[in-house]
Amino acid sequence: MAIKACVFDVFGTVVDWRGSIVAEGEAVWRERGVDVDWPAFADAWRNLYQPSMERVRSGREGFIKLDDLHRDNLEQVLEAFDVTSLSAAEKVELNEIWHRLNPWPDVVEGLTRLKTRYIIGTMSNGNIALMVNMAKRAGLPWDVILGAEISRQYKPHPDSYRNSVAALGLEPSEVLMVAAHNSDLVAAAEQGMPGAFIARPSEHGDDQTTDLAPEHEFAYVARDFCELADQLGCA
Amino acid sequence: MAIKACVFDVFGTVVDWRGSIVAEGEAVWRERGVDVDWPAFADAWRNLYQPSMERVRSGREGFIKLDDLHRDNLEQVLEAFDVTSLSAAEKVELNEIWHRLNPWPDVVEGLTRLKTRYIIGTMSNGNIALMVNMAKRAGLPWDVILGAEISRQYKPHPDSYRNSVAALGLEPSEVLMVAAHNSDLVAAAEQGMPGAFIARPSEHGDDQTTDLAPEHEFAYVARDFCELADQLGCA
Repeated sequence: MAIKACVFDVFGTVVDWRGSIVAEGEAVWRERGVDVDWPAFADAWRNLYQPSMERVRSGREGFIKLDDLHRDNLEQVLEAFDVTSLSAAEKVELNEIWHRLNPWPDVVEGLTRLKTRYIIGTMSNGNIALMVNMAKRAGLPWDVILGAEISRQYKPHPDSYRNSVAALGLEPSEVLMVAAHNSDLVAAAEQGMPGAFIARPSEHGDDQTTDLAPEHEFAYVARDFCELADQLGCA
Repeated sequence: MAIKACVFDVFGTVVDWRGSIVAEGEAVWRERGVDVDWPAFADAWRNLYQPSMERVRSGREGFIKLDDLHRDNLEQVLEAFDVTSLSAAEKVELNEIWHRLNPWPDVVEGLTRLKTRYIIGTMSNGNIALMVNMAKRAGLPWDVILGAEISRQYKPHPDSYRNSVAALGLEPSEVLMVAAHNSDLVAAAEQGMPGAFIARPSEHGDDQTTDLAPEHEFAYVARDFCELADQLGCA
């Protein structure tokens, strides 16, 4: 079937979460008391991401939005890095750093072109407020915010993809999953969605060893969102 | 608190549902076998809207999306108007007429201006696919689709407003409800949301007698979305 919608992984695929956190951390938070190795701090915070979502995916707990998981995880990271000086309000503000991530340079142009022919939406584990605030700040022209909070389940659980596709009233074969992570595309393919792989070789810094290339046969492989727009016939 | 988001009733406030259905009905569906009094047909279909949502609001049934309620209601209206010739596929296509409604003339300009300073979203009983398809066709620049399918409850049930506001991570006082219907604004106000009344005096045709003027003290009253943008300081 013809593709009618393109849905995007966000952390890593659309935005440079690590670079953005390090930049704001060093520019703003170091002098506010978080005087840490910021790349290590960002990595430690992100390393708690998958285990925290497993609370929901396993069925042990009902749906908890990502802002709340990030907030719990922040508490652990601050303790691990011996940061004890932040007020409750400062912790909320720091936690919202995930709403202030910067897109890769090709993203706004590529999405703007893709939007002319396709529904474009998020298929992220980020919650609605996080996605909306990020989009307003960065100029991401989403038609619709889908993903975990809509689906009430986190990727790569099948329901996360299935429920969001169903919300569009489309068949999985009509919805292209775009991601910089092989595992995300494989999980989407298991639900019948075609995939587009976009490498983001510095998502994890200069020494990244994973997801440098597609490891499966995906419908599309492109250097960036602009090349994907070319491949999908968007002027 | 300062307003951070403007959320909109859609049927009647953003789009001219009755005029759009009558226009497509007379131009397309009459010669395809639906040779009826189209204003009467549109009104009859719409008259089943509130009772059908009561299936969900009453708690008798779980959440059913509006496309499905519209489809059930269409079956009743076709029977009432003695239309028996449509195939199942044609009924699906006719039911999706609700995805093809035209906005009032001020809407695209007004929303585009409001979007420069505020999060703009739907707070409609329409489901996500309906809202997204309508927006793509009509050029409605929503930041986010909220409302019944996100909230799993239909307006004017309190949960419909509350859950959508919570999804934005905002306080009710920060989210302006914009509607052409006094009752919608009153229900939103009961949840702490400020209101903006925009009269749409021909929503129900030339003889409309309801919602011609605000019947309560609302934070804003404007002639159309452009005047609302003026009042909210959007260039």
